[in-house]
Amino acid sequence: MKIENPNPMPWRFSERAAQMQSSFIREILKITQRPEIISFAGGLPSPATFPVAEMKEAFDQVLTDSGNVALQYGPTDGYLPLRQWIADSLSSNGAKIVPEQVLMTSGSQQALDLLGKVLIDEGSRVLVETPSYLGALQAFSVYRPEFVSVETDDHGLVPSSLDKVAQGARLLYALPNFQNPTGRTLSVERRQQLVETCARLGLPLIEDDPYGALSYKGEPLPKMVAMNPDGVIYMGSFSKVLTPGIRLGYVVAPLPLVRRLELAKQAADLHTSQLTQMVVHRVIKDGFLERHIPQIRHLYGDQCQVMLDAMAEHFPASVKWTKPEGGMFIWVTLPKHVNAMALLDEAIANHVAFVPGAPFYANEPETNTFRLSFVTVPPERIRAGIATLGKLIAAKV
Amino acid sequence: MKIENPNPMPWRFSERAAQMQSSFIREILKITQRPEIISFAGGLPSPATFPVAEMKEAFDQVLTDSGNVALQYGPTDGYLPLRQWIADSLSSNGAKIVPEQVLMTSGSQQALDLLGKVLIDEGSRVLVETPSYLGALQAFSVYRPEFVSVETDDHGLVPSSLDKVAQGARLLYALPNFQNPTGRTLSVERRQQLVETCARLGLPLIEDDPYGALSYKGEPLPKMVAMNPDGVIYMGSFSKVLTPGIRLGYVVAPLPLVRRLELAKQAADLHTSQLTQMVVHRVIKDGFLERHIPQIRHLYGDQCQVMLDAMAEHFPASVKWTKPEGGMFIWVTLPKHVNAMALLDEAIANHVAFVPGAPFYANEPETNTFRLSFVTVPPERIRAGIATLGKLIAAKV
Repeated sequence: MKIENPNPMPWRFSERAAQMQSSFIREILKITQRPEIISFAGGLPSPATFPVAEMKEAFDQVLTDSGNVALQYGPTDGYLPLRQWIADSLSSNGAKIVPEQVLMTSGSQQALDLLGKVLIDEGSRVLVETPSYLGALQAFSVYRPEFVSVETDDHGLVPSSLDKVAQGARLLYALPNFQNPTGRTLSVERRQQLVETCARLGLPLIEDDPYGALSYKGEPLPKMVAMNPDGVIYMGSFSKVLTPGIRLGYVVAPLPLVRRLELAKQAADLHTSQLTQMVVHRVIKDGFLERHIPQIRHLYGDQCQVMLDAMAEHFPASVKWTKPEGGMFIWVTLPKHVNAMALLDEAIANHVAFVPGAPFYANEPETNTFRLSFVTVPPERIRAGIATLGKLIAAKV
Repeated sequence: MKIENPNPMPWRFSERAAQMQSSFIREILKITQRPEIISFAGGLPSPATFPVAEMKEAFDQVLTDSGNVALQYGPTDGYLPLRQWIADSLSSNGAKIVPEQVLMTSGSQQALDLLGKVLIDEGSRVLVETPSYLGALQAFSVYRPEFVSVETDDHGLVPSSLDKVAQGARLLYALPNFQNPTGRTLSVERRQQLVETCARLGLPLIEDDPYGALSYKGEPLPKMVAMNPDGVIYMGSFSKVLTPGIRLGYVVAPLPLVRRLELAKQAADLHTSQLTQMVVHRVIKDGFLERHIPQIRHLYGDQCQVMLDAMAEHFPASVKWTKPEGGMFIWVTLPKHVNAMALLDEAIANHVAFVPGAPFYANEPETNTFRLSFVTVPPERIRAGIATLGKLIAAKV
């Protein structure tokens, strides 16, 4: 039945596909999964925080009570009780958010893809932090924008720098809480300035907030969406507070935009698993996260402190790093002449891994930077890995 | 904290978003979900076929045995044992397929989106059947191709008509088994001709096969991917043989293409739920589908026959329709002057619904056609609904 000697297929890819590149992080992760490697490269949450028993019980209950609904096709915008829960939890932050503004997505990566699809034409100016989240750069890149790197300092994005670069831009993408990759937090004053500036410039502001709940101390800072619900697009996720493997995130947007995002989602994958949405709603609806999240904060906060202490002990004085108040990452800046990619080669030879900073820059990379994660590594291995890194760096500075 | 009197946001959407339209079917479904309506409009599988007990047991087992893996981030290409199972099941059809060729997707709708993303530039010629699957037209439309409708007759796509339209085309999209919307099946001879023609023309052939397992009698016809694994892209789904709400499909493609699709998926949603993939693998790995699918075939085949018998009894002689040998749909052709959209208005007033044929055409619609589904309606309601439709049509011809 097989046809004989077919011509080889002359594959011709779209222009957008011809330039696609694999995430450097996912490539590194393949190397660093060997058990002898102490890996600070991952962006994975700690499986010790996964509520396996609660999820198991909820799957059983949802399938028992409403199996036929959970397993059938569902609405594109998502499971209404969960969208209501999200709207309520954001409204309690000050803004009035209605469920019609909430679109459930297959992880927040899909929200990035849909936002790119709906807001970016080829050559559109897209403003991002310096550095920015790699997954967002990757998602937006598909739509071939011109990335503009916005000035940042130790306190994150500098709002006053926007006026000179925002002309004609389609969006500004920002990650205000415990940013990936830097761990930086944007101050309340800057949030206010940023929201005001974007409203004045008519610039849609994307507030990506996967880590916002993971503050180690004190209350979370006010969300920007609460300051201007008509101009800010909020992205949330269950990956860091519950579990990432189920792929459940959401985007909250003003109605004219969310309707377009819903159409884009309908064409992209019809809808996100009904069953998953119903299960997550059942797990969280009665206050589970209020008991669960403090445990994650405690674990990550302790391990962050272990790493910071080890860095203070082992890293040369010419090295600088951020002191995150939440989230999963520390950002390291070496002296200008030290290349983090070369350091990575030596580190892997010595069984330690991290992610070099260059891929997080949309434009000119600072090659003397790298990202460390502390969440999946036990304290004694954090100390050992940082001691090794300290020795390797000391030999270079 | 809220800023005062912000300027209204001047939303500017991408060119592709400005032309997005909601699926007409999903709009109709909103109307037809009222319980008094006898709806032949749905494309939903029957919940009576959902293996709720087996799914429940598998979720429990997977979360008990490997909760931390199932709930963690996973590889973009998918869960290897499931990809191996898919490769094996397709290889038994004649071709040698390896798991590296299999990419798991969030329903087969996502495979359509990824294929469009990777193969279609603005203005690219994309060949589709006349009529074709609406979801595919919607997914590809996002990338703004020029659709070319390929000639079809009662036996489906006419391979000899390809030469004159294939010049420079990027792909041909075909649904050879019990096509949505027509219920037609492409003969073995035409499959062979089609595969040979596409190989000769260097034209990638997409074989979308969600219904292939649902033949009412006899063995399934050979798959086109088995005739030329280097030139045919095969799409499969668990939606029609297991359950759709979990959103699990797959695309099998030659290696140069599947690597690009994987990069596109990484940017689109990182990966499809690990937990879902592990659960589906556990349900199906020991031959469950071989026992389960015959029950679906039996149910759908019986209801199809009830509908065909009722149509023969109630529809005027000037009306024609397909006699599907599997799948979920019958396609009706009214006399030329009868408009199916106008008929729908009257039908809904009389508590019967179907989907008019026009939205399934990429170019010139045949407005005297409509689609009927029989799978979710019990026999006595099929007879009542067809009798009503017959009366309404008789008054028009």
